[in-house]
This record gives sequence, structure tokens and C-alpha cells, in this order.
Amino acid sequence: MQRTRLKGDRIVLDTSLFVNPDVRDDFGRTPTEAINTFLGLAERLPHIEFYMPSSIFKELMHFIDRDKIPARLLTVLHQKSPSKHELTCPAFLLYELIEEMRGRINKGLRFAEKAVRSVGKQDEREVIQNLRKNYREALREGIIDSKEDVDLILLAKELDALLVTADRGAINWAEKMGIRWLLPERFRDYLLDMIERTGG
Amino acid sequence: MQRTRLKGDRIVLDTSLFVNPDVRDDFGRTPTEAINTFLGLAERLPHIEFYMPSSIFKELMHFIDRDKIPARLLTVLHQKSPSKHELTCPAFLLYELIEEMRGRINKGLRFAEKAVRSVGKQDEREVIQNLRKNYREALREGIIDSKEDVDLILLAKELDALLVTADRGAINWAEKMGIRWLLPERFRDYLLDMIERTGG
Repeated sequence: MQRTRLKGDRIVLDTSLFVNPDVRDDFGRTPTEAINTFLGLAERLPHIEFYMPSSIFKELMHFIDRDKIPARLLTVLHQKSPSKHELTCPAFLLYELIEEMRGRINKGLRFAEKAVRSVGKQDEREVIQNLRKNYREALREGIIDSKEDVDLILLAKELDALLVTADRGAINWAEKMGIRWLLPERFRDYLLDMIERTGG
Repeated sequence: MQRTRLKGDRIVLDTSLFVNPDVRDDFGRTPTEAINTFLGLAERLPHIEFYMPSSIFKELMHFIDRDKIPARLLTVLHQKSPSKHELTCPAFLLYELIEEMRGRINKGLRFAEKAVRSVGKQDEREVIQNLRKNYREALREGIIDSKEDVDLILLAKELDALLVTADRGAINWAEKMGIRWLLPERFRDYLLDMIERTGG
């Protein structure tokens, strides 16, 4: 009899788990330590496949000490890009993305105009700092805004995997596309419970 | 024997054909006149089906005198939205859109910063006018940026139709998606040649 694939059999990981200090603490004080802790837990769950998009793995490599990463990271954490020339996305998501961008673009212009009008009342450097902050928030926060974000979403979809990410944009799209997701700060407990239940 | 559908059997129209003075002149001095000219030609081509997305038709109605439009417009120019919950788009287009938007968003911020720095050297009103112009060009020109644009592209794809539009964003996407397209200024000649060849 063919084994039915359990929910959570496949997990796609973002870098935040290892590099974001707010969520990494569960796993270790440094990215390298966090990876080693993760590997220790992952090896007790041989029925779960862990994936990371190649683009995200490349980002991770900026933060970690390659020499201290055990070779088994390569066999435990699979690097894989989504099959971007075979996958499709529902057309209505295109509408949502375009409409959302349109609203954000208008908001960005309003911040720019406000900045121009506040020169004279405020120091120019301060005006530009505020402008950058407000503009980035308006145009990029909570939306998928990089090919790495698209990689995460599409890989999780392709593999019918659980997506572990703290990125609001990726979470929003996971919701739109019916992808299961989990915040990194819950991930250690998730793994520990899996280990307990499977006697790993 | 089933009739093979000829290329050009179905045509999707944008409003520019009727409302943009630069291209409309071939058809008439006013939008209403342009529509009547179009109807005269279309009726000599009974084997061609003409479509307009409902959203675009709604836009068109802002420009024309409803009372002067003959009822036959409704039977000749079909209003139809794309089947947006059934259609899909290739995932690699999502990457292209996100990457393109990312570049444009950065460009928009550079224009905003430049505007802030030019206050004092230039009149504030002038600075804001320039900012708006540059910003809109950077973020919206040559890209699909409204649900009406998406409607055009998806309807042409769904119907395997020729898309008649002057919108650079829609044309760019037509190119990406293998949709035939034609500039409105060539459309009168296109119809006349079809009439000649089919003896209409």
C-alpha cells in the first residue's frame, strides 16, 4: 500500500528562521548555531523533507560561516527552485496584485509630495530619511516584492509544503493560494511536537 | 466539415480606437462618429467577432452620447469579461512583473528625493508638477497598471483574438504571452483589406 503523504511531510524554509534575531533565539545565538540546532532536530524527523529555494539559500550564505556548516546541511535541507516555466498562477491573483500596486503607487506619490512641502519646516536630511521610510513601507511592506518572495510561494505551492516564513507579503500570498504557513517563532515547538508524536 | 477558425476571426478592442484623437481620426471626429464608422465596416465582416471587456466598455460610455449609439452596437461589439477564475498565467510572468515593479519603485523614490533637493532652487508648485510627471512615467508607463489592462490581455488570450490597443503596457504583455496585437492607427486599413479579400 502506498504511504499517504502526511501533512507537514514537506517544509519550505525562509532565511528568517536563521538570520532574524527576533525569531532565531529559539535555535541559537548565531546563524551558524541556529543551523546546527535545526539540523539536530531535522535528523530526528527522517519522514520530513526540508526545502529552501536556491535564491534564498544564497542569501543565507551571506550570514553564515561556511566552514562551520556541516556537509549534512546539503542532504537535509534541499535546495530547489520552483519549476517557474511549468507552474501557473490563477489569473485573478494578477488582478489583485495590479490593483494593490496601483493603490500603493498612489500612496507613494502622496508621501513624496508631502516631503516636498515639508522642506523648509524640517531639515532636508530628515525629510529624506522620513520619505525613504514612509515610501518603502507604502510600496513594499506586506506585498511580495522580490523574486525570492515569489520563489518561496511557488516552491511551497509546487511541493504542497508548509511554508515557514515571517514575511508578511509571502504570508498574504500563501493565504490567497491555499498554502499552509507557520511563523518561525512557532517552528521549534512544531518540530519538537512532531518528534514526540513520531517517537523520533 | 468543421470550419477552421481563421486568424483574425476574433478581435478585442481597447477604447483608444474611439476616444484617442490621434488614432480616432481615421474613424471620425467624435467618439460617437468613430463608433458609427466602425459599425459600418464591422457589418461587412460577418465572420469576424468583435469583443470589448465590460470594464473597457464602461470607460467608453463616459465619452459617447448614449442616445446616438445605434442598438446594433450591442450585437456587433460583444461585451465580455475574461474568465478570471478559470484562466491562469505562467508563473514566470509573475517574476517579470515583480522584478519590473521593483526597479520602477526604486526609480520613483529617486525622483522623489531629487524633488525634495530641488525645493529652493525651483518654485514648489513646479517641483510638484515635475515630480508627478516623472513619477507616473517611472511607475506606470509601459506596464500593465490597471484591472482594465489585465482584462484586455486576458480576454485576448482566452479568445485567441487579435488585440487592438495603443497601450504600451498591454502590448508588452501581449508580446510575453504570444497574443497577436495591432496598433489602432492600422485598424481601418486592416478592416478594409479584410472586406476586400472576403468580398464583403
